[in-house]
Amino acid sequence: MKPMGPIPGGYASHHGQLSIAGLTPAELLDRAGGSPAFVYDRSRVAATVERLRSNMPDRLRINYAVKANPFPPVIAFLASLVDGFDIASAGELSLIEGAGIDAARVSFAGPGKRDAELRQAIAYGVTINLESENEAQRALAIGRDLGIRPRLAVRVNPPFDLRGSGMKMGGGAKPFGIDAERVPKLIGELTQADCEFRGLHIYAGSQSLDAEAIVAAQDSTLDLAEDLARAAGVDLPSVNIGGGFGVAYFAKDEPLDLAPVGAALERRLQRLSPHVRDAEIHLELGRYLVAEAGVYLATIVDRKESQGEVFLVTDGGLHHQLAASGNFGTVVRRNYPLAVATRFDRPGEEVVNVVGCLCTPLDRLGDQVHLPRAEVGDIIAIFMAGAYGASASPAAFLGQGPAAEILV
Amino acid sequence: MKPMGPIPGGYASHHGQLSIAGLTPAELLDRAGGSPAFVYDRSRVAATVERLRSNMPDRLRINYAVKANPFPPVIAFLASLVDGFDIASAGELSLIEGAGIDAARVSFAGPGKRDAELRQAIAYGVTINLESENEAQRALAIGRDLGIRPRLAVRVNPPFDLRGSGMKMGGGAKPFGIDAERVPKLIGELTQADCEFRGLHIYAGSQSLDAEAIVAAQDSTLDLAEDLARAAGVDLPSVNIGGGFGVAYFAKDEPLDLAPVGAALERRLQRLSPHVRDAEIHLELGRYLVAEAGVYLATIVDRKESQGEVFLVTDGGLHHQLAASGNFGTVVRRNYPLAVATRFDRPGEEVVNVVGCLCTPLDRLGDQVHLPRAEVGDIIAIFMAGAYGASASPAAFLGQGPAAEILV
Repeated sequence: MKPMGPIPGGYASHHGQLSIAGLTPAELLDRAGGSPAFVYDRSRVAATVERLRSNMPDRLRINYAVKANPFPPVIAFLASLVDGFDIASAGELSLIEGAGIDAARVSFAGPGKRDAELRQAIAYGVTINLESENEAQRALAIGRDLGIRPRLAVRVNPPFDLRGSGMKMGGGAKPFGIDAERVPKLIGELTQADCEFRGLHIYAGSQSLDAEAIVAAQDSTLDLAEDLARAAGVDLPSVNIGGGFGVAYFAKDEPLDLAPVGAALERRLQRLSPHVRDAEIHLELGRYLVAEAGVYLATIVDRKESQGEVFLVTDGGLHHQLAASGNFGTVVRRNYPLAVATRFDRPGEEVVNVVGCLCTPLDRLGDQVHLPRAEVGDIIAIFMAGAYGASASPAAFLGQGPAAEILV
Repeated sequence: MKPMGPIPGGYASHHGQLSIAGLTPAELLDRAGGSPAFVYDRSRVAATVERLRSNMPDRLRINYAVKANPFPPVIAFLASLVDGFDIASAGELSLIEGAGIDAARVSFAGPGKRDAELRQAIAYGVTINLESENEAQRALAIGRDLGIRPRLAVRVNPPFDLRGSGMKMGGGAKPFGIDAERVPKLIGELTQADCEFRGLHIYAGSQSLDAEAIVAAQDSTLDLAEDLARAAGVDLPSVNIGGGFGVAYFAKDEPLDLAPVGAALERRLQRLSPHVRDAEIHLELGRYLVAEAGVYLATIVDRKESQGEVFLVTDGGLHHQLAASGNFGTVVRRNYPLAVATRFDRPGEEVVNVVGCLCTPLDRLGDQVHLPRAEVGDIIAIFMAGAYGASASPAAFLGQGPAAEILV
């Protein structure tokens, strides 16, 4: 038997079955249009934003990183809850446009922006986080061509990272942003150019559960913003301090304690230097806002035994939940939290392997997990599926196609 | 500097640029409809099949596993070259139907076949490789319902694996097939049932470069088929002996030596026992037939330096080539073979990192590789991209969308 990650608090059992928005697993699949499906719970998204707001400084603006979950109803729902949106491609920009979100709320980062993407972003009016001097020149040229003053910020490659983060975005040679020592010169050029200078974007890492490490990274980030603004001799209109707030996927993961992060940030914002004092301060979160609001439901199509082990074969798989199969961004495969949704209040009765329908040994969703006895037709729930699930998985693999998605 | 895998032999330089089917990289991208693109070379696919035919026993039937590359023109091209097709889903079956391929040439394996998939497969008439007793009962019931005698074979979970293979498909508790000791009973039931019994499917592993290991696995596979046929007291109409022929992705990989494999198989087929003597013997290959015929081309959109390292930022990335980024089925990231396609005959001049356009540190296509100096607008080629590339990558990630594909 191997451990699973913790099922997020608050998932209720109703008549013995997992209940989301008052619906049974079968009802959720029917509403989604079939099995398997991702179910996103708007009340949990709202509660997460509310919990953040109550812990973070009032002046802090909360942005949603669309890459975490670009399902259009999720974007539309968040439009009324968060302050800004961060996008990573022209494809995501089209989703933002589709949701009718004001360009002034949107910034665009990404190391490989093509000219066509810059053109679309400048035409729409979103802030572009410049990743290089070359990109700055291209954006200015496109702005001239369009007769539009582009909104441009500078993405900084910070000389530090977020300690212990799942993804390090700074602290060494990186493809992201511009090394800090070259930033003042570029700021100087931008303030002389035909554009609206929008400040800095500094992202040190993601997926940390360590409040102290996040506080340290935020301090370093604001120190760096102050240093760069002073060196450039400009007041910053805006600083995106990145995100990095992690969620608990695996056994022994403890949820991030927001209170000390918010308190430390409040103190730090009180003593901002003159060049940054009046800046908008943006916190950019993707996974943190939506991961635990999502559940991936898949139906058991076969229950089989091989060499004394039980396999529950589902109609889902790594083509929808690549990360849960341990094949994306992790070295050692560990179990996400999962459950038999249709027997949600039953205790564990047997050790089983939960696999997907793909003809590859990589397609394992639960490895030697302790579950109530489940039969063909029962529905498996994989939790923490609201971020980097549907859009971060190879949906076309083995001809399977995407899962249904629904916001309830 | 870190090593790269070997560029497959025979890729030519013309006027200093990589030339495929007589076209330059830029011409290939134009034909494909844009950058990035997968380019598949039909002459290389044909040459691979020809090389196989000349090394393998005449009676051996060569099947193509569609999952390796389901691009419809590739399937259509292979229809005239190979004997059979192996599919893994109803989605792949639809591609087979679209190519007008006779159902008698097709078999369908996969541990999580839904009733709707079984129904489609039985209606079309393809052979179903049964993965469990439960699936056998479902298939027989659907056949009765449709008034069609289904073609049914039994997939065996062999008690051995393919030594040193990238993916082990046997040799322990597996979700694939039926444990060998239960197979004779199921064969007995099928020969009494209202179906056409089509024999056995035994797949021990994939992606092996070790001829001796493949010979041993093929011997064990045919031994097992003979044992099971004798125990069941039936003549086998067909045995799919799996595949497992690997290709060279990484430094120090040596191409598989086909000659000893073919010679050993020829000898083994000469002494088949009576129950298997007249069976069709199928070799099922996916990757081996198409991997080295494919090149992924991506254009450099930025060239930047950070902390003394050079980054070539392309418009491609892991959303198209997940395996090349080291995020699929590998524990340690290693470099696929790659080159600056537009400076193909230049020697290495600098050590660079080749990255994709995604805003994640996972999106690295070449890590500290030694390449000729490349500039914005140059085109990077990643080789060995013909299998498990486009369809095995999360194309929707970060809103990017799929790459173009072209067969030339």
